[in-house]
Amino acid sequence: MKAVRLNEIGGPQNLRLETIPDLEPGAGEILVNVKRAAFNRRDVFITQGLYPGISLPRTLGSDGAGVVAGVGPGVAGPAVGTPVVIDPMLNWGNDPNLWDAKASSILGMPHDGTFAEYVVVPAQNVHPKPAHLSDDEAAALPLAGLTAYRALVTRGRITRDDVVLITGIGGGVQTFALLFAAYIGARTIVTSSSDAKLARAQAMGADVAINYATSEAWAKEARAAAGGGGPSLIIDSAGGDTFAQCLDIARPGARIVTYGGTSPKSNVRLFSIFWKHLDILGTSMGSPSDFAGMLALVADGKLTSAIDEVVPMADAAAAAERLNTSAQFGKVVLAID
Amino acid sequence: MKAVRLNEIGGPQNLRLETIPDLEPGAGEILVNVKRAAFNRRDVFITQGLYPGISLPRTLGSDGAGVVAGVGPGVAGPAVGTPVVIDPMLNWGNDPNLWDAKASSILGMPHDGTFAEYVVVPAQNVHPKPAHLSDDEAAALPLAGLTAYRALVTRGRITRDDVVLITGIGGGVQTFALLFAAYIGARTIVTSSSDAKLARAQAMGADVAINYATSEAWAKEARAAAGGGGPSLIIDSAGGDTFAQCLDIARPGARIVTYGGTSPKSNVRLFSIFWKHLDILGTSMGSPSDFAGMLALVADGKLTSAIDEVVPMADAAAAAERLNTSAQFGKVVLAID
Repeated sequence: MKAVRLNEIGGPQNLRLETIPDLEPGAGEILVNVKRAAFNRRDVFITQGLYPGISLPRTLGSDGAGVVAGVGPGVAGPAVGTPVVIDPMLNWGNDPNLWDAKASSILGMPHDGTFAEYVVVPAQNVHPKPAHLSDDEAAALPLAGLTAYRALVTRGRITRDDVVLITGIGGGVQTFALLFAAYIGARTIVTSSSDAKLARAQAMGADVAINYATSEAWAKEARAAAGGGGPSLIIDSAGGDTFAQCLDIARPGARIVTYGGTSPKSNVRLFSIFWKHLDILGTSMGSPSDFAGMLALVADGKLTSAIDEVVPMADAAAAAERLNTSAQFGKVVLAID
Repeated sequence: MKAVRLNEIGGPQNLRLETIPDLEPGAGEILVNVKRAAFNRRDVFITQGLYPGISLPRTLGSDGAGVVAGVGPGVAGPAVGTPVVIDPMLNWGNDPNLWDAKASSILGMPHDGTFAEYVVVPAQNVHPKPAHLSDDEAAALPLAGLTAYRALVTRGRITRDDVVLITGIGGGVQTFALLFAAYIGARTIVTSSSDAKLARAQAMGADVAINYATSEAWAKEARAAAGGGGPSLIIDSAGGDTFAQCLDIARPGARIVTYGGTSPKSNVRLFSIFWKHLDILGTSMGSPSDFAGMLALVADGKLTSAIDEVVPMADAAAAAERLNTSAQFGKVVLAID
């Protein structure tokens, strides 16, 4: 079968389209014929060697949608031919509040992932595809949708009364966070350094869009636009000075959720945290119940994914480079052709 | 009546023992004959001008215990002569999760406080003194006990299964946090730069005591002593590098509660927050239900306060200076003589 593989560290350009042996599902596993996969920044980090526990060569890819092609011993279903979407979080563990950091992993490293004609995954990670989604939209959903859902709903406890600030709109998680927050009925504020991305975010339902590159006072603007003393819920993965400013402009009693940090450290003002009784909540990926909740929300709202582009397998390296420069808005989908 | 007053900013030495006019309770108020008051770092900050909304001259003091000396119109009780302790948080507001930052204040600024023979407070702030407490112990309890209770119980969600790290033991809040955590049955780890304070903390029930001045690797020691990957609950008011290290040694899923910051900023590592799904929770003072919960815990456990020393009114300035240099362990009590 054809697969997009990484044989050695060296950046996105090291991704190669190769032919590798076919797969068979083992006990408790399902073989999925992948129709569409999608990129995450994690894939780029892996090509750059910036991820723990890399073992090569490997088929990358965490996101995938397709049809069941075979079931291993002890698996009751779904039946061969069923359209499915894959939960990429393997062995989260028994505690919905916290992953088992030792046992768990994400599909695509250290196990072969979705950038291939076929992938083998544990049966419990295979879910019927929401009926209203195309293969492209379904493949775009899993890891980013899961992370956004946990950040916004499980950790952030969003309600329709919230004013949600989403910093640095454009990546997969942020676009799903915007989509979910708008559907839930919250007021939304987004920031970006790109007017084009801000325009797309407004078309997706963002109430307020602020260009932080052209407006140095973006944080004050966001606070004023939020009303009530500032945003009541903030979703950030920029870190650094952006994260620190988020604490300063948050409404008293607000929740600030971080699921990453482009800038790895942040010099925060403690007074903002204790005086305003803030909750700063860390999150990463999501539990099986988060994935189920995310699928239910998407199905309920007939929500679709924001898709940047759909590329053929031969262009995987260029597509990964597009993520590396943060040029995309929404998800970059890989057509398994 | 006699009162310890601040007439102008300039530090603890500006506290003066003076004679001022007697007080009368207004509608909805109670006049308390103060037997014992106690110092908080807030009193020191006020003498130094390091507090918002200072209006002078003023009788300082947030903590007080005594007996009811009179009730204003519309107040049903308690009866004159009842031993009472005062909740110093005035007009918290209707939301138990968050104070009303505009309407609320703390007894002692901008309203005259407890460093006097009599104080007038709203009737709902006056509570029967837990029967097992002496006047010294009761006067030591209010603001520090309230802050510790909210940090540990309401915000920190402590259970007996927690391993609690309390940084910089010695001040009132930290000693109450230790006392409450030990009573609840959690395992406790404390740090200080003073071996004498660590010995007192161990006598109060601390399971592990670490001197951060003589052990540069105090954070690693605390993590190892905690077991299970680190402390599951951390109570910090040091801020700065201590707070940042707390995040790095916290157990996955841990709660870190900050109620202040001796160092106002902290350069935190975001990876620790999102990878370990940490909760960082800010808190300050406490609500009426926190105060009631704190009194119930103290009464239930027959807990007493850690008292550093009891000083006469004439020595108020020297006592405040003792807090200014963090020389105390537990509360400095003012005898209203």
